[in-house]
Amino acid sequence: MSAIEGRNAVFEALRAGMPVRSIMIAEGTQPDRTLDEIARLAAEVGVPVVRVPKRELDAKSERGSHQGVIADAAPYKYASLDDVLARAEGKERSLIIALDHITDPGNFGAIVRTAEVVGADGVLVANARAAAVTPAAYKASAGALAHVALAQEANIVRSLVRCKEAGYWIAGASEHAKQNVWQAPLEGRIVLVMGSEGEGLARLTRETCDFLVSLPQVGKVGSLNVAQATTAIAYEWLRRAAPEA
Amino acid sequence: MSAIEGRNAVFEALRAGMPVRSIMIAEGTQPDRTLDEIARLAAEVGVPVVRVPKRELDAKSERGSHQGVIADAAPYKYASLDDVLARAEGKERSLIIALDHITDPGNFGAIVRTAEVVGADGVLVANARAAAVTPAAYKASAGALAHVALAQEANIVRSLVRCKEAGYWIAGASEHAKQNVWQAPLEGRIVLVMGSEGEGLARLTRETCDFLVSLPQVGKVGSLNVAQATTAIAYEWLRRAAPEA
Repeated sequence: MSAIEGRNAVFEALRAGMPVRSIMIAEGTQPDRTLDEIARLAAEVGVPVVRVPKRELDAKSERGSHQGVIADAAPYKYASLDDVLARAEGKERSLIIALDHITDPGNFGAIVRTAEVVGADGVLVANARAAAVTPAAYKASAGALAHVALAQEANIVRSLVRCKEAGYWIAGASEHAKQNVWQAPLEGRIVLVMGSEGEGLARLTRETCDFLVSLPQVGKVGSLNVAQATTAIAYEWLRRAAPEA
Repeated sequence: MSAIEGRNAVFEALRAGMPVRSIMIAEGTQPDRTLDEIARLAAEVGVPVVRVPKRELDAKSERGSHQGVIADAAPYKYASLDDVLARAEGKERSLIIALDHITDPGNFGAIVRTAEVVGADGVLVANARAAAVTPAAYKASAGALAHVALAQEANIVRSLVRCKEAGYWIAGASEHAKQNVWQAPLEGRIVLVMGSEGEGLARLTRETCDFLVSLPQVGKVGSLNVAQATTAIAYEWLRRAAPEA
Protein backbone atom coordinates (compact mmCIF):
# COMPACT_ATOMS: atom_id res chain seq x y z
CA MET A 1 0.00 0.00 0.00
CA SER A 2 1.39 3.32 -0.90
CA ALA A 3 -1.76 5.46 -1.38
CA ILE A 4 -2.97 7.37 1.68
CA GLU A 5 -6.47 8.67 1.14
CA GLY A 6 -8.73 11.14 2.89
CA ARG A 7 -8.06 14.56 4.37
CA ASN A 8 -7.31 13.57 7.94
CA ALA A 9 -5.13 10.61 6.97
CA VAL A 10 -3.02 12.72 4.59
CA PHE A 11 -2.79 15.50 7.15
CA GLU A 12 -1.67 13.07 9.89
CA ALA A 13 0.83 11.41 7.55
CA LEU A 14 2.47 14.77 6.79
CA ARG A 15 2.40 15.86 10.39
CA ALA A 16 3.99 12.62 11.58
CA GLY A 17 6.82 13.02 9.07
CA MET A 18 5.83 9.99 7.01
CA PRO A 19 7.75 10.00 3.71
CA VAL A 20 5.28 11.29 1.10
CA ARG A 21 6.26 11.68 -2.56
CA SER A 22 3.36 13.75 -3.84
CA ILE A 23 -0.20 14.77 -3.08
CA MET A 24 -3.07 14.79 -5.55
CA ILE A 25 -6.07 17.02 -4.97
CA ALA A 26 -9.18 16.73 -7.14
CA GLU A 27 -9.98 19.76 -9.28
CA GLY A 28 -12.91 21.71 -7.90
CA THR A 29 -12.48 20.33 -4.36
CA GLN A 30 -14.06 22.62 -1.79
CA PRO A 31 -11.28 24.08 0.39
CA ASP A 32 -11.45 23.63 4.16
CA ARG A 33 -9.10 24.03 7.11
CA THR A 34 -7.60 20.54 6.84
CA LEU A 35 -6.92 21.03 3.13
CA ASP A 36 -5.25 24.37 3.88
CA GLU A 37 -3.06 22.68 6.50
CA ILE A 38 -2.14 19.93 4.05
CA ALA A 39 -1.03 22.56 1.51
CA ARG A 40 0.94 24.43 4.17
CA LEU A 41 2.72 21.31 5.52
CA ALA A 42 3.43 20.01 2.02
CA ALA A 43 5.04 23.32 1.07
CA GLU A 44 7.06 23.26 4.29
CA VAL A 45 8.62 19.85 3.60
CA GLY A 46 8.79 20.27 -0.17
CA VAL A 47 6.18 17.73 -1.22
CA PRO A 48 4.61 18.63 -4.59
CA VAL A 49 0.83 19.10 -4.69
CA VAL A 50 -0.88 18.53 -8.02
CA ARG A 51 -4.45 19.20 -9.13
CA VAL A 52 -5.95 16.35 -11.14
CA PRO A 53 -9.43 15.47 -12.40
CA LYS A 54 -11.54 13.75 -9.73
CA ARG A 55 -11.81 10.58 -11.83
CA GLU A 56 -8.05 10.03 -11.43
CA LEU A 57 -8.48 9.94 -7.66
CA ASP A 58 -11.49 7.63 -8.02
CA ALA A 59 -9.30 5.27 -10.04
CA LYS A 60 -6.41 5.40 -7.54
CA SER A 61 -8.61 5.04 -4.47
CA GLU A 62 -8.52 1.64 -2.78
CA ARG A 63 -11.15 2.36 -0.18
CA GLY A 64 -13.43 4.85 -1.92
CA SER A 65 -12.90 7.44 0.79
CA HIS A 66 -10.45 9.92 -0.69
CA GLN A 67 -12.54 13.08 -0.06
CA GLY A 68 -10.64 14.72 -2.90
CA VAL A 69 -7.14 14.03 -1.52
CA ILE A 70 -4.69 11.16 -2.01
CA ALA A 71 -1.03 11.14 -0.99
CA ASP A 72 1.47 8.91 -2.72
CA ALA A 73 3.64 7.57 0.09
CA ALA A 74 7.04 6.06 -0.49
CA PRO A 75 6.65 2.31 0.14
CA TYR A 76 7.85 1.46 3.64
CA LYS A 77 11.31 -0.11 3.61
CA TYR A 78 11.05 -3.27 5.65
CA ALA A 79 14.20 -4.84 6.95
CA SER A 80 14.70 -8.60 6.72
CA LEU A 81 15.36 -10.80 9.72
CA ASP A 82 18.87 -11.18 8.27
CA ASP A 83 19.35 -7.42 8.52
CA VAL A 84 18.24 -7.44 12.13
CA LEU A 85 20.52 -10.35 13.03
CA ALA A 86 23.40 -8.68 11.21
CA ARG A 87 22.97 -5.54 13.34
CA ALA A 88 23.17 -7.65 16.47
CA GLU A 89 26.10 -9.79 15.42
CA GLY A 90 28.76 -10.10 18.08
CA LYS A 91 26.79 -8.15 20.67
CA GLU A 92 26.46 -9.65 24.12
CA ARG A 93 23.22 -7.78 24.65
CA SER A 94 20.52 -7.39 22.05
CA LEU A 95 16.76 -7.03 22.14
CA ILE A 96 14.34 -7.94 19.36
CA ILE A 97 10.64 -7.36 19.95
CA ALA A 98 8.42 -9.84 18.10
CA LEU A 99 4.72 -9.14 17.67
CA ASP A 100 2.39 -12.09 17.32
CA HIS A 101 -0.63 -10.66 15.49
CA ILE A 102 -0.95 -7.27 17.04
CA THR A 103 -3.36 -5.36 14.84
CA ASP A 104 -4.09 -2.04 16.54
CA PRO A 105 -2.03 0.68 14.78
CA GLY A 106 -1.76 2.80 17.94
CA ASN A 107 -0.31 -0.07 19.97
CA PHE A 108 1.92 -1.13 17.08
CA GLY A 109 3.33 2.39 16.70
CA ALA A 110 3.82 2.81 20.44
CA ILE A 111 5.73 -0.49 20.64
CA VAL A 112 8.01 0.60 17.80
CA ARG A 113 8.62 3.83 19.73
CA THR A 114 9.59 1.84 22.83
CA ALA A 115 11.85 -0.40 20.74
CA GLU A 116 13.70 2.65 19.45
CA VAL A 117 14.02 4.24 22.89
CA VAL A 118 15.44 1.15 24.64
CA GLY A 119 17.84 0.53 21.76
CA ALA A 120 16.34 -2.68 20.39
CA ASP A 121 18.03 -4.07 17.29
CA GLY A 122 14.72 -4.69 15.57
CA VAL A 123 11.02 -5.37 15.60
CA LEU A 124 9.62 -8.50 14.00
CA VAL A 125 6.02 -8.81 12.81
CA ALA A 126 4.17 -11.65 11.18
CA ASN A 127 2.94 -10.41 7.83
CA ALA A 128 -0.48 -12.00 8.02
CA ARG A 129 -3.11 -10.08 10.00
CA ALA A 130 -0.47 -7.74 11.44
CA ALA A 131 -0.70 -3.99 11.84
CA ALA A 132 0.56 -2.15 8.77
CA VAL A 133 2.65 1.00 8.55
CA THR A 134 -0.31 3.40 8.32
CA PRO A 135 -0.40 7.11 9.17
CA ALA A 136 -1.95 6.18 12.55
CA ALA A 137 0.91 3.77 13.31
CA TYR A 138 3.45 6.33 12.14
CA LYS A 139 1.92 8.96 14.39
CA ALA A 140 1.88 6.66 17.43
CA SER A 141 5.53 5.76 16.78
CA ALA A 142 6.42 9.48 16.84
CA GLY A 143 8.53 8.88 13.76
CA ALA A 144 10.42 5.89 15.25
CA LEU A 145 9.14 3.76 12.34
CA ALA A 146 11.62 5.62 10.16
CA HIS A 147 14.56 4.51 12.35
CA VAL A 148 13.82 1.05 13.71
CA ALA A 149 14.61 -2.06 11.67
CA LEU A 150 11.16 -3.55 11.17
CA ALA A 151 11.15 -7.04 9.69
CA GLN A 152 8.03 -8.67 8.30
CA GLU A 153 8.22 -12.44 8.17
CA ALA A 154 5.63 -14.91 6.94
CA ASN A 155 6.28 -17.48 9.62
CA ILE A 156 6.95 -16.15 13.08
CA VAL A 157 7.75 -19.56 14.59
CA ARG A 158 10.41 -20.23 11.99
CA SER A 159 11.81 -16.73 12.58
CA LEU A 160 12.02 -17.38 16.31
CA VAL A 161 13.88 -20.61 15.67
CA ARG A 162 16.36 -18.68 13.53
CA CYS A 163 16.85 -16.21 16.37
CA LYS A 164 17.54 -19.11 18.74
CA GLU A 165 20.21 -20.34 16.35
CA ALA A 166 21.69 -16.84 16.45
CA GLY A 167 22.07 -17.06 20.22
CA TYR A 168 18.86 -15.46 21.46
CA TRP A 169 16.66 -16.62 24.30
CA ILE A 170 12.99 -16.41 23.35
CA ALA A 171 10.91 -14.85 26.13
CA GLY A 172 7.13 -14.88 25.70
CA ALA A 173 4.91 -12.53 27.69
CA SER A 174 2.07 -14.44 29.28
CA GLU A 175 -0.24 -13.92 32.24
CA HIS A 176 0.10 -17.63 32.99
CA ALA A 177 3.90 -17.62 33.26
CA LYS A 178 5.44 -19.16 36.39
CA GLN A 179 8.17 -16.51 36.53
CA ASN A 180 7.54 -12.82 36.65
CA VAL A 181 9.54 -10.22 34.80
CA TRP A 182 11.88 -9.66 37.77
CA GLN A 183 12.59 -13.37 38.31
CA ALA A 184 13.11 -14.42 34.70
CA PRO A 185 16.56 -14.39 33.03
CA LEU A 186 15.66 -11.34 31.00
CA GLU A 187 19.17 -10.28 30.05
CA GLY A 188 21.67 -10.60 27.25
CA ARG A 189 20.30 -11.55 23.85
CA ILE A 190 16.53 -11.66 24.17
CA VAL A 191 13.63 -11.90 21.76
CA LEU A 192 10.57 -10.58 23.61
CA VAL A 193 7.39 -11.99 22.09
CA MET A 194 4.15 -10.09 22.71
CA GLY A 195 0.77 -11.57 21.77
CA SER A 196 -2.45 -9.82 20.87
CA GLU A 197 -4.38 -8.28 23.75
CA GLY A 198 -7.39 -10.47 23.23
CA GLU A 199 -5.83 -13.84 22.61
CA GLY A 200 -2.30 -13.71 23.94
CA LEU A 201 0.36 -15.83 22.27
CA ALA A 202 -0.68 -18.42 19.71
CA ARG A 203 -0.05 -21.99 20.94
CA LEU A 204 2.78 -22.76 18.53
CA THR A 205 4.46 -19.44 19.28
CA ARG A 206 4.21 -20.08 23.02
CA GLU A 207 5.70 -23.55 22.64
CA THR A 208 8.65 -22.07 20.74
CA CYS A 209 9.53 -19.78 23.64
CA ASP A 210 12.40 -20.74 25.96
CA PHE A 211 10.58 -19.24 28.91
CA LEU A 212 7.49 -17.18 29.70
CA VAL A 213 7.35 -14.03 31.80
CA SER A 214 4.40 -12.36 33.47
CA LEU A 215 4.08 -8.75 34.53
CA PRO A 216 2.82 -8.50 38.12
CA GLN A 217 -0.51 -6.70 38.27
CA VAL A 218 -1.76 -5.89 41.71
CA GLY A 219 -4.89 -3.94 40.76
CA LYS A 220 -8.37 -5.31 41.16
CA VAL A 221 -9.75 -5.07 37.67
CA GLY A 222 -7.38 -4.23 34.94
CA SER A 223 -4.48 -5.33 32.90
CA LEU A 224 -2.14 -3.15 30.90
CA ASN A 225 -2.56 -2.67 27.22
CA VAL A 226 0.02 -4.47 25.13
CA ALA A 227 2.07 -1.35 24.38
CA GLN A 228 2.38 -0.43 28.06
CA ALA A 229 3.24 -4.02 28.96
CA THR A 230 5.95 -4.07 26.29
CA THR A 231 7.44 -0.88 27.71
CA ALA A 232 7.55 -2.26 31.26
CA ILE A 233 9.21 -5.52 30.17
CA ALA A 234 11.64 -3.83 27.77
CA TYR A 235 12.77 -1.50 30.57
CA GLU A 236 13.44 -4.48 32.79
CA TRP A 237 15.75 -5.83 30.05
CA LEU A 238 17.45 -2.42 29.93
CA ARG A 239 17.77 -2.28 33.73
CA ARG A 240 19.66 -5.56 33.92
CA ALA A 241 22.61 -4.00 32.14
CA ALA A 242 22.57 -0.71 34.03
CA PRO A 243 25.65 -0.39 36.26
CA GLU A 244 23.69 1.16 39.11
CA ALA A 245 20.76 -1.24 39.20
CA MET B 1 -20.00 18.17 31.64
CA SER B 2 -22.41 15.34 31.49
CA ALA B 3 -23.66 15.43 27.88
CA ILE B 4 -21.87 13.18 25.41
CA GLU B 5 -22.73 14.11 21.86
CA GLY B 6 -22.30 12.52 18.47
CA ARG B 7 -22.71 8.95 17.27
CA ASN B 8 -19.15 7.73 17.71
CA ALA B 9 -18.69 9.38 21.11
CA VAL B 10 -21.91 7.86 22.45
CA PHE B 11 -21.05 4.48 20.97
CA GLU B 12 -17.56 4.55 22.51
CA ALA B 13 -18.93 5.67 25.87
CA LEU B 14 -21.32 2.70 25.97
CA ARG B 15 -18.71 0.29 24.74
CA ALA B 16 -16.18 1.44 27.35
CA GLY B 17 -18.74 0.92 30.12
CA MET B 18 -19.01 4.61 30.98
CA PRO B 19 -22.01 5.19 33.27
CA VAL B 20 -24.76 6.57 31.03
CA ARG B 21 -28.21 7.46 32.39
CA SER B 22 -30.16 7.87 29.18
CA ILE B 23 -29.77 8.45 25.46
CA MET B 24 -31.75 10.90 23.37
CA ILE B 25 -32.15 10.39 19.64
CA ALA B 26 -33.72 13.07 17.45
CA GLU B 27 -37.01 12.14 15.81
CA GLY B 28 -36.57 11.43 12.12
CA THR B 29 -32.85 10.66 12.46
CA GLN B 30 -31.61 8.51 9.59
CA PRO B 31 -30.61 5.10 10.98
CA ASP B 32 -27.10 3.80 10.35
CA ARG B 33 -24.85 1.05 11.67
CA THR B 34 -23.49 3.09 14.58
CA LEU B 35 -27.00 4.08 15.65
CA ASP B 36 -28.08 0.42 15.51
CA GLU B 37 -25.10 -0.51 17.69
CA ILE B 38 -25.95 2.24 20.17
CA ALA B 39 -29.51 0.88 20.46
CA ARG B 40 -28.21 -2.68 20.88
CA LEU B 41 -25.62 -1.77 23.55
CA ALA B 42 -28.08 0.47 25.40
CA ALA B 43 -30.62 -2.37 25.54
CA GLU B 44 -27.89 -4.75 26.74
CA VAL B 45 -26.93 -2.61 29.73
CA GLY B 46 -30.45 -1.29 30.40
CA VAL B 47 -29.96 2.34 29.41
CA PRO B 48 -33.26 3.93 28.25
CA VAL B 49 -33.34 5.41 24.75
CA VAL B 50 -35.87 8.17 24.10
CA ARG B 51 -36.93 9.86 20.88
CA VAL B 52 -37.20 13.63 21.18
CA PRO B 53 -37.67 16.54 18.74
CA LYS B 54 -34.39 17.60 17.18
CA ARG B 55 -34.68 21.09 18.71
CA GLU B 56 -34.28 19.54 22.18
CA LEU B 57 -30.92 18.11 21.14
CA ASP B 58 -29.95 21.43 19.59
CA ALA B 59 -30.69 23.09 22.93
CA LYS B 60 -28.72 20.49 24.95
CA SER B 61 -25.73 20.41 22.60
CA GLU B 62 -22.62 22.17 23.86
CA ARG B 63 -20.53 21.71 20.77
CA GLY B 64 -23.12 21.69 18.01
CA SER B 65 -22.05 18.25 16.82
CA HIS B 66 -24.70 15.88 18.15
CA GLN B 67 -25.56 14.20 14.80
CA GLY B 68 -28.96 13.35 16.26
CA VAL B 69 -27.63 11.60 19.39
CA ILE B 70 -26.81 12.82 22.90
CA ALA B 71 -26.13 10.64 25.94
CA ASP B 72 -26.72 11.91 29.44
CA ALA B 73 -23.75 10.61 31.42
CA ALA B 74 -23.73 10.38 35.18
CA PRO B 75 -21.34 13.08 36.41
CA TYR B 76 -17.96 11.57 37.18
CA LYS B 77 -17.41 11.12 40.91
CA TYR B 78 -14.07 12.69 41.69
CA ALA B 79 -12.35 11.77 44.90
CA SER B 80 -10.76 14.47 47.05
CA LEU B 81 -7.11 14.48 48.03
CA ASP B 82 -8.36 13.71 51.55
CA ASP B 83 -10.00 10.53 50.24
CA VAL B 84 -6.76 9.47 48.58
CA LEU B 85 -4.68 10.17 51.69
CA ALA B 86 -7.24 8.33 53.84
CA ARG B 87 -6.87 5.23 51.64
CA ALA B 88 -3.13 5.33 52.14
CA GLU B 89 -3.15 6.01 55.86
CA GLY B 90 -0.82 3.77 57.82
CA LYS B 91 0.60 2.12 54.70
CA GLU B 92 4.36 1.87 54.43
CA ARG B 93 4.09 1.77 50.66
CA SER B 94 1.78 3.93 48.63
CA LEU B 95 1.86 5.45 45.18
CA ILE B 96 0.01 8.53 44.00
CA ILE B 97 0.42 9.61 40.39
CA ALA B 98 0.12 13.37 39.91
CA LEU B 99 -0.40 14.82 36.44
CA ASP B 100 0.85 18.32 35.79
CA HIS B 101 -1.30 19.51 32.86
CA ILE B 102 -1.55 16.41 30.77
CA THR B 103 -4.28 17.12 28.24
CA ASP B 104 -4.36 14.19 25.80
CA PRO B 105 -7.31 11.95 26.73
CA GLY B 106 -5.59 8.81 25.42
CA ASN B 107 -2.49 9.38 27.58
CA PHE B 108 -4.61 10.38 30.56
CA GLY B 109 -6.74 7.22 30.30
CA ALA B 110 -3.70 4.99 29.81
CA ILE B 111 -2.03 6.48 32.90
CA VAL B 112 -5.15 5.82 34.98
CA ARG B 113 -5.06 2.24 33.68
CA THR B 114 -1.44 1.89 34.82
CA ALA B 115 -2.30 3.41 38.21
CA GLU B 116 -4.99 0.78 38.72
CA VAL B 117 -2.77 -2.08 37.61
CA VAL B 118 0.17 -1.22 39.89
CA GLY B 119 -2.17 -0.63 42.84
CA ALA B 120 -1.74 3.14 43.21
CA ASP B 121 -3.88 4.75 45.90
CA GLY B 122 -4.92 7.58 43.62
CA VAL B 123 -4.36 9.86 40.68
CA LEU B 124 -4.17 13.61 41.15
CA VAL B 125 -4.89 16.11 38.37
CA ALA B 126 -4.83 19.88 38.32
CA ASN B 127 -8.30 21.03 37.35
CA ALA B 128 -7.20 23.79 35.04
CA ARG B 129 -6.28 22.73 31.51
CA ALA B 130 -6.26 19.05 32.47
CA ALA B 131 -7.71 16.13 30.54
CA ALA B 132 -11.35 15.51 31.42
CA VAL B 133 -13.16 12.22 31.87
CA THR B 134 -14.35 11.94 28.26
CA PRO B 135 -15.39 8.80 26.36
CA ALA B 136 -11.91 8.75 24.78
CA ALA B 137 -10.23 8.84 28.21
CA TYR B 138 -12.64 6.22 29.52
CA LYS B 139 -11.85 3.98 26.59
CA ALA B 140 -8.07 4.36 26.99
CA SER B 141 -8.42 3.58 30.70
CA ALA B 142 -10.20 0.30 29.81
CA GLY B 143 -12.71 1.11 32.53
CA ALA B 144 -10.08 1.81 35.22
CA LEU B 145 -11.51 5.32 35.61
CA ALA B 146 -14.46 3.68 37.38
CA HIS B 147 -12.14 2.13 39.99
CA VAL B 148 -9.24 4.50 40.64
CA ALA B 149 -9.59 7.37 43.11
CA LEU B 150 -9.12 10.39 40.85
CA ALA B 151 -8.74 13.69 42.68
CA GLN B 152 -9.00 17.03 40.93
CA GLU B 153 -7.30 19.85 42.80
CA ALA B 154 -7.06 23.51 41.87
CA ASN B 155 -3.50 23.94 43.09
CA ILE B 156 -1.14 21.08 42.40
CA VAL B 157 1.78 22.60 44.32
CA ARG B 158 -0.33 22.97 47.47
CA SER B 159 -1.56 19.38 47.02
CA LEU B 160 2.02 18.11 46.76
CA VAL B 161 2.91 19.95 49.96
CA ARG B 162 -0.03 18.25 51.68
CA CYS B 163 1.24 14.88 50.45
CA LYS B 164 4.69 15.69 51.89
CA GLU B 165 3.06 16.39 55.23
CA ALA B 166 1.38 12.99 54.95
CA GLY B 167 4.77 11.30 54.64
CA TYR B 168 5.23 11.10 50.88
CA TRP B 169 8.39 11.77 48.92
CA ILE B 170 7.65 13.80 45.81
CA ALA B 171 9.43 12.40 42.74
CA GLY B 172 9.25 14.42 39.55
CA ALA B 173 9.98 12.83 36.18
CA SER B 174 12.44 14.94 34.22
CA GLU B 175 14.87 14.35 31.41
CA HIS B 176 17.31 16.64 33.20
CA ALA B 177 17.36 14.67 36.46
CA LYS B 178 20.75 13.70 37.89
CA GLN B 179 19.47 10.33 39.07
CA ASN B 180 17.81 7.79 36.85
CA VAL B 181 14.84 5.70 37.81
CA TRP B 182 17.07 2.84 39.03
CA GLN B 183 19.27 5.05 41.20
CA ALA B 184 16.59 7.20 42.82
CA PRO B 185 14.95 6.24 46.16
CA LEU B 186 11.74 5.28 44.41
CA GLU B 187 10.23 3.22 47.20
CA GLY B 188 7.79 3.49 50.07
CA ARG B 189 5.36 6.41 49.94
CA ILE B 190 5.88 8.15 46.63
CA VAL B 191 4.05 10.79 44.65
CA LEU B 192 5.18 10.45 41.05
CA VAL B 193 4.69 13.74 39.20
CA MET B 194 4.49 13.58 35.40
CA GLY B 195 4.55 16.73 33.27
CA SER B 196 3.10 17.35 29.85
CA GLU B 197 4.96 15.85 26.90
CA GLY B 198 5.72 19.19 25.35
CA GLU B 199 6.71 21.27 28.34
CA GLY B 200 7.65 18.88 31.13
CA LEU B 201 7.07 19.94 34.72
CA ALA B 202 6.14 23.53 35.46
CA ARG B 203 8.89 25.36 37.36
CA LEU B 204 7.00 25.64 40.65
CA THR B 205 5.98 22.01 40.48
CA ARG B 206 9.57 20.96 39.84
CA GLU B 207 10.85 23.01 42.74
CA THR B 208 8.32 21.32 45.04
CA CYS B 209 9.71 17.87 44.23
CA ASP B 210 12.04 16.18 46.72
CA PHE B 211 13.99 14.62 43.88
CA LEU B 212 13.85 14.22 40.11
CA VAL B 213 14.17 10.97 38.17
CA SER B 214 14.98 10.38 34.53
CA LEU B 215 14.17 7.35 32.44
CA PRO B 216 17.25 6.17 30.52
CA GLN B 217 16.70 6.35 26.78
CA VAL B 218 19.38 4.80 24.66
CA GLY B 219 17.75 5.28 21.24
CA LYS B 220 18.95 7.81 18.73
CA VAL B 221 15.86 9.86 18.08
CA GLY B 222 12.96 9.27 20.31
CA SER B 223 11.55 9.60 23.75
CA LEU B 224 8.63 7.71 25.21
CA ASN B 225 5.19 9.19 25.35
CA VAL B 226 4.12 10.24 28.82
CA ALA B 227 1.84 7.23 29.37
CA GLN B 228 4.60 4.76 28.53
CA ALA B 229 7.08 6.65 30.70
CA THR B 230 4.63 6.58 33.60
CA THR B 231 4.26 2.81 33.20
CA ALA B 232 8.02 2.22 33.22
CA ILE B 233 8.55 4.36 36.34
CA ALA B 234 5.51 2.99 38.19
CA TYR B 235 6.79 -0.56 37.57
CA GLU B 236 10.13 0.37 39.07
CA TRP B 237 8.26 1.50 42.23
CA LEU B 238 6.43 -1.84 42.22
CA ARG B 239 9.66 -3.80 41.70
CA ARG B 240 11.32 -2.30 44.77
CA ALA B 241 8.85 -4.12 46.99
CA ALA B 242 8.92 -7.43 45.14
CA PRO B 243 10.55 -10.14 47.27
CA GLU B 244 12.41 -11.65 44.33
CA ALA B 245 13.75 -8.47 42.80
